[in-house]
Amino acid sequence: MSDFKEKVLNLHKKNTGKLEILPNVKLTSIEDLSMAYTPGVAIPCLEIKNDKNKAYDYTMKGKTVAIITNGSAVLGLGNIGPVASLPVMEGKSALLHEFSGVQAYPLALDSQDPEILIQTIKLLSPNFSAIMLEDISAPNCVTIERRLQEELDIPVFHDDQHGTAIVVSAALINALKVVGKNMGDIKVLVSGLGAAGSAIIKLLNKLGVKHIYGYDLLGVLNKEKYNQYNYVIKELLDLNIVQSSQASSLKDLIKNTDVFIGVSAKDILKEDMIALMNPDPIIFAMANPDPEILPEVAIKAGAKIIGTGRSDYPNQINNVLVFPGLMKGVLSSKIKTITDQVKIVTAKAIASMVKEDELSVHHILPNIFDKNLVSTIEKAIKDQIKKG
Amino acid sequence: MSDFKEKVLNLHKKNTGKLEILPNVKLTSIEDLSMAYTPGVAIPCLEIKNDKNKAYDYTMKGKTVAIITNGSAVLGLGNIGPVASLPVMEGKSALLHEFSGVQAYPLALDSQDPEILIQTIKLLSPNFSAIMLEDISAPNCVTIERRLQEELDIPVFHDDQHGTAIVVSAALINALKVVGKNMGDIKVLVSGLGAAGSAIIKLLNKLGVKHIYGYDLLGVLNKEKYNQYNYVIKELLDLNIVQSSQASSLKDLIKNTDVFIGVSAKDILKEDMIALMNPDPIIFAMANPDPEILPEVAIKAGAKIIGTGRSDYPNQINNVLVFPGLMKGVLSSKIKTITDQVKIVTAKAIASMVKEDELSVHHILPNIFDKNLVSTIEKAIKDQIKKG
Repeated sequence: MSDFKEKVLNLHKKNTGKLEILPNVKLTSIEDLSMAYTPGVAIPCLEIKNDKNKAYDYTMKGKTVAIITNGSAVLGLGNIGPVASLPVMEGKSALLHEFSGVQAYPLALDSQDPEILIQTIKLLSPNFSAIMLEDISAPNCVTIERRLQEELDIPVFHDDQHGTAIVVSAALINALKVVGKNMGDIKVLVSGLGAAGSAIIKLLNKLGVKHIYGYDLLGVLNKEKYNQYNYVIKELLDLNIVQSSQASSLKDLIKNTDVFIGVSAKDILKEDMIALMNPDPIIFAMANPDPEILPEVAIKAGAKIIGTGRSDYPNQINNVLVFPGLMKGVLSSKIKTITDQVKIVTAKAIASMVKEDELSVHHILPNIFDKNLVSTIEKAIKDQIKKG
Repeated sequence: MSDFKEKVLNLHKKNTGKLEILPNVKLTSIEDLSMAYTPGVAIPCLEIKNDKNKAYDYTMKGKTVAIITNGSAVLGLGNIGPVASLPVMEGKSALLHEFSGVQAYPLALDSQDPEILIQTIKLLSPNFSAIMLEDISAPNCVTIERRLQEELDIPVFHDDQHGTAIVVSAALINALKVVGKNMGDIKVLVSGLGAAGSAIIKLLNKLGVKHIYGYDLLGVLNKEKYNQYNYVIKELLDLNIVQSSQASSLKDLIKNTDVFIGVSAKDILKEDMIALMNPDPIIFAMANPDPEILPEVAIKAGAKIIGTGRSDYPNQINNVLVFPGLMKGVLSSKIKTITDQVKIVTAKAIASMVKEDELSVHHILPNIFDKNLVSTIEKAIKDQIKKG
């Protein structure tokens, strides 16, 4: 066993997982028990029975987010099922608490059926202030999120879609400042049209990007393949949010674009393609752990700015920049829906963390350990909600 | 607002509920994140994908019990619904951790339909080592528990049924020692034939009690009312576990019985009824918070031993004596089903905590704060499992 593997497994085994559930009340006398349990506990029960909103005050519903998956699209591992996905969900919960103080309970559900998942999450919703969906395959993740947001009175957030879209937007806002281009003028190519890719396309459109092209396993996105796409991609075509292209290949499609955003597969972006892009190409190659092109190769081929999902290169484009602050802001603003406006405000808040004089090709995003990041996002969301 | 009410509400509000979910791993460097989250987290995921049992080592499944309700029969409050039941579930989780170190996550499910509850709990089961059902109304609680135990490979335990049955059995074992009677000879009257009452009858039968009579809102239990009973009571009649009686009233039924066990309603047991019982009557009056008869009244009427659910009288018959040790024993023995034999062993272990020379009419059960209680139950269960 490699040294790293052994260290990781020991870390997970030492305390049997990565989370502890602990009482925060004293329970060492009969009097303690009479307040935290019977007969006293009947008092908050009846308060909540008479006004459901009191659950936000008297129970941990008021401070707890659910992190829910079915294990169908975990990291780059694919459909490994619910129980094998638990280490990722516990890790996400641990990160959320570490960075924002918001607590989250991870729940992996044993079903691949979106209708059953929707029903189950609805039945679970009384326990939580918000639902974070994780690592559910597309297009089910979109179906589930939409339906839940329509039918529940708590916010629902699928991080693989919107967390990624928000952090990519933040990175792009700053990258465009570095190269001196505008959202309204650029051409963007998105490679990979799953949960992340489709959400990136939608949010960039809301941010004012007019020319977005798509590429995936079916090749160049165009209307001739309409019937082969899932309903999420069909909607993007129907609404002209993404452009249909007659290009014959990725190499053909990338000509004269300004930005390449990859949430697809390793090594699909080649040096000769970068040479065909407009001046000062921006490359976000986020396939994990192996990006669409390695940063050193991209730079040699002419890329001006390159970001990846990896921590061992500059410009790490990581959802961890988003969800702690966003969840904190959502909970403290008590909003019921995470609108596009909230997502945009979050992206701009993240971008604002890098001051104009610090901005460079190697520094378009804040450090994930920046102590002011979460509070900056939280404040931006609160201000947005106040403005209405 | 009364002083007690204010203190209880403040306790619940101070930290927004009674539980905290905290990371137990360090997350302050990129290296920490690479082990607890990506890319390292893929390692335990793949280990579990290849062998599901590894989840007991690498995730908190291995140490976590679910406490699940639908809020349909909460304390004496009735069907107050899921969200209003949360303070009780959090309290139970806090108690379990305080007394045994076993952690539990409370989940209130928003459904009254047993089939939906069964399906939902099955979908949730990958996350937990065991399921504790709480405060679900009869007979649904019996249906749900049976089906889950048949269909899941983790133990399922409905505390209102079996926790109560076990602690009553423990109390009766010791009470009979005090009065010098045998299980095989006594006549027992059980008042209240819901979840607790039916489980008490079944466990006392397994302990060798041959004459058990029932009483509930329909009056004296007898075969003439067969079609008015739910299937749980019908089964008890079919199997002759409970006796059909021609008595005309509770007063008539109680004549010449040795033990009255009440899980029913306040004040239904009268002084003149106790006078009709066999010598040295044993009364367990457990209606909460107001018992079937007050201890001082029962003693005056001739009761030899009286126990209640209350902490302000001697002989508190409380499930808290049972579930912490039982859950600890179940988890450390890795048993898949909580058999009648495990329940009996648990009852005997609880009874054994009161030494022969300490036994008295005022002292038939251990103190819930007794430091050796949980380990004694745990050891008894382990020994039982070893014997097979």
